[in-house]
Amino acid sequence: MTLVKRLALIGTGLIGGSLALDWRAAGAVQEVAGWDASPVALEQALACGIISKKAAGPEEAAAGADLVLVAAPVKATCDLAARLGPKLKSGQVVTDVASVKAPVVAAWERYLPPGVEFVGGHPLAGSEKAGPRAARRGLFQGAAFVLTPARTASSRATGLVASLVRLAGANPVFLPAERHDALVAAVSHLPHLSAVALVNTAFELAGDALDLSAGGFADTTRIALGSPVMWRDICLTNRDAILDALDRFSRQMARVRALVAAGKAAELEELFAGARAIRSQLTGVKEETVCAFSPPANPMVRPS
Amino acid sequence: MTLVKRLALIGTGLIGGSLALDWRAAGAVQEVAGWDASPVALEQALACGIISKKAAGPEEAAAGADLVLVAAPVKATCDLAARLGPKLKSGQVVTDVASVKAPVVAAWERYLPPGVEFVGGHPLAGSEKAGPRAARRGLFQGAAFVLTPARTASSRATGLVASLVRLAGANPVFLPAERHDALVAAVSHLPHLSAVALVNTAFELAGDALDLSAGGFADTTRIALGSPVMWRDICLTNRDAILDALDRFSRQMARVRALVAAGKAAELEELFAGARAIRSQLTGVKEETVCAFSPPANPMVRPS
Repeated sequence: MTLVKRLALIGTGLIGGSLALDWRAAGAVQEVAGWDASPVALEQALACGIISKKAAGPEEAAAGADLVLVAAPVKATCDLAARLGPKLKSGQVVTDVASVKAPVVAAWERYLPPGVEFVGGHPLAGSEKAGPRAARRGLFQGAAFVLTPARTASSRATGLVASLVRLAGANPVFLPAERHDALVAAVSHLPHLSAVALVNTAFELAGDALDLSAGGFADTTRIALGSPVMWRDICLTNRDAILDALDRFSRQMARVRALVAAGKAAELEELFAGARAIRSQLTGVKEETVCAFSPPANPMVRPS
Repeated sequence: MTLVKRLALIGTGLIGGSLALDWRAAGAVQEVAGWDASPVALEQALACGIISKKAAGPEEAAAGADLVLVAAPVKATCDLAARLGPKLKSGQVVTDVASVKAPVVAAWERYLPPGVEFVGGHPLAGSEKAGPRAARRGLFQGAAFVLTPARTASSRATGLVASLVRLAGANPVFLPAERHDALVAAVSHLPHLSAVALVNTAFELAGDALDLSAGGFADTTRIALGSPVMWRDICLTNRDAILDALDRFSRQMARVRALVAAGKAAELEELFAGARAIRSQLTGVKEETVCAFSPPANPMVRPS
């Protein structure tokens, strides 16, 4: 069933590319006009069947599109709001996949003309790989996909994006942008920063003998393989939530240190058992337990 | 080729069980007399083909054995030195697999009679699973397997244990016990403690929404599923090296925090790129680069 006649894909990398592949394979999207800041990536996206035609810029890609998917790092996604937003036409829907949502939603709310709707998105899945050639169908299967609609988004727009998310095998989870940002600071940004510090600490202590490390270390630090530019932007745009998570983590580590220093056997065992119990609850995504609020059906917005 | 006519396996869980399975499959060990503090585990080990006969205690298992493998947590391995060590006979070789080596080597050096040799061991592989039923052939394939011989260990004893390590598909790496303990504090113990703190911080901030987390969080915190008793013992026995690693890590985290707080874009990007470069070097075990010293060929020890 066709949900989108023409998709504008702005940013043809791993995330945007994988979504386009899923949607084209499902027959939900007829045509994909793509643009990427990298001409090489754009050419690869055409060769991989991610897009059906290349555009000369984001404006050309977006012209006549029902849905504009901006699949770029946070900062680029915000910057594009000022450049592309004012040129969009009533009835078009814009969504994105950036890792931090409050500044993205604020930027697009500011620049979109009336009747153009914004539904922010963030798939909680991915890979340390990047680029169109890493894109694949099924990347989001079973993953949570947070949606943060703009205040003015209609149920038509949120429903369209949620349907597309489900077609990619993911579970749409509606959250306020600020709540999303606090959550990812805890479960994604803090773990990345601690992985970076772990790698540097281990290198400081072990040097070349780092190769001795077992699978535990490789798992724990895999996230440190992510794109430095993407993570830089995340730190710059989700600063306050990250600082809060860092400070809470620092207090947890101080408690651990005190128990180790004092050789508190029973307390250490209890600490480890407690963390194991929490971690072992991580069995998958439970959509119904995390819907902090429902998508708005805003009467101020032009009905479809 | 038979290397060991009779193996005493004291502790029939994941690590000891997997080694026994590998060695029996290779025909290197003829008979395995097993004992475990848990009668259930001992019965399972017999049913799984890990041992060929049950013993009523560590002394009975060790009687007449060429090689005694103690496969227990650190503290139990140290305690067994006092109980079993003095009863062993000249010509017997003892090895172990505990996660901290200096206290283990010291305990066995103290209690072994002349002519009984100790070669400490620690496979840098494993699983968050436990028990005889989790044991499997090939668990150590490609892993580093640190060996920390006692001062008095002969080349016959170190050679025997190194050959058995290779038969399990692992790479023997000879290290002084103290160097091993500093290394694992960095690449194993610190990552476990930070995973525990990450889980607790994320739970504090996200609560039930922890289920939203993506694969990155699951990977980063998998190590927190480990046995609370084993990790308690590690913290109690490798205290100083762990405190040093914790303090270095704390300084790394403070630096990260300062860069995030000040919004230092270029420095953050550089930090992430540096950690990624180090982490991407983790391609596998390079035996030749980490042999800090050679196994001793000690003339004071009875030749084979």
